Amino acid sequence: MENENNFAFQDYYPDDYAHCYGCGRLNEDGLQIKSYWDGDESVCHVNPHKHYTGGMKDILYGGLIASLIDCHGAGTAAAAQARELKINLEPGTMPRFVTASLKVDYLAPTPVGKEIELRGTVKSIDGRKVVVEVTLSSENNLCARGEGLFIQVREKS
Amino acid sequence: MENENNFAFQDYYPDDYAHCYGCGRLNEDGLQIKSYWDGDESVCHVNPHKHYTGGMKDILYGGLIASLIDCHGAGTAAAAQARELKINLEPGTMPRFVTASLKVDYLAPTPVGKEIELRGTVKSIDGRKVVVEVTLSSENNLCARGEGLFIQVREKS
Repeated sequence: MENENNFAFQDYYPDDYAHCYGCGRLNEDGLQIKSYWDGDESVCHVNPHKHYTGGMKDILYGGLIASLIDCHGAGTAAAAQARELKINLEPGTMPRFVTASLKVDYLAPTPVGKEIELRGTVKSIDGRKVVVEVTLSSENNLCARGEGLFIQVREKS
Repeated sequence: MENENNFAFQDYYPDDYAHCYGCGRLNEDGLQIKSYWDGDESVCHVNPHKHYTGGMKDILYGGLIASLIDCHGAGTAAAAQARELKINLEPGTMPRFVTASLKVDYLAPTPVGKEIELRGTVKSIDGRKVVVEVTLSSENNLCARGEGLFIQVREKS
């Protein structure tokens, strides 16, 4: 397993790529989510601050749901590509990915103040293009499902 | 024009529906975006806090882009339905909508620290279902395009 040392995908991002509000370990104001392999799936647990409410006070903000799916999906795409390319991950060596498109279906209201589980499944890897499906659950209830197309950034040589 | 009194769509939301992190006027920690009609299009201008960075420090967070498209789209759906139903808008009378699905295509990096323009176009109104397309531009450059399916909440009688 890639995370037997308990490093998260995001811990391997290069420093200049670690400022994401959702998942960057260097963004002190952000959520700093952490994603790991769990077999062939990726998993992330997060309990967002209670100010991320939707219209109603007890429902989680849909924009945050899209954000979490995006960040966990991009991290999964990067980690899957690292595995595909047999990169021996060390801090700073994770391939960089950007989101080309994101689709989210909101299936049920997500309560505020509860831990969320995100699970990612790699649907395809085609060169620099990786498609990841992500489910978002709260207390084992499926609340949203998303899919992202993530593109690996060409590194300057 | 519906906004000749300078009220934004979100100013008409019922109080118990005004807590959204993106657009709720009662969410003191949120962005409180404001959307208006501009002819048949809706428009919103916002300059997000600089901590909403993507992986790189100078690029706006993709999750926030999805969030802004969601909020502006939902507001546009509600305002369009109010217009369709000939509701004489007063604070608290805006129909409530929830997001059923959201699709975002990221076309170009969006810079941090610049004003963003969101423009919404109503694609269809079918009973309680409203589809809205939203573009996101920075300095007249189209950076993202999204589409949302928004469903009107049945009011308890």
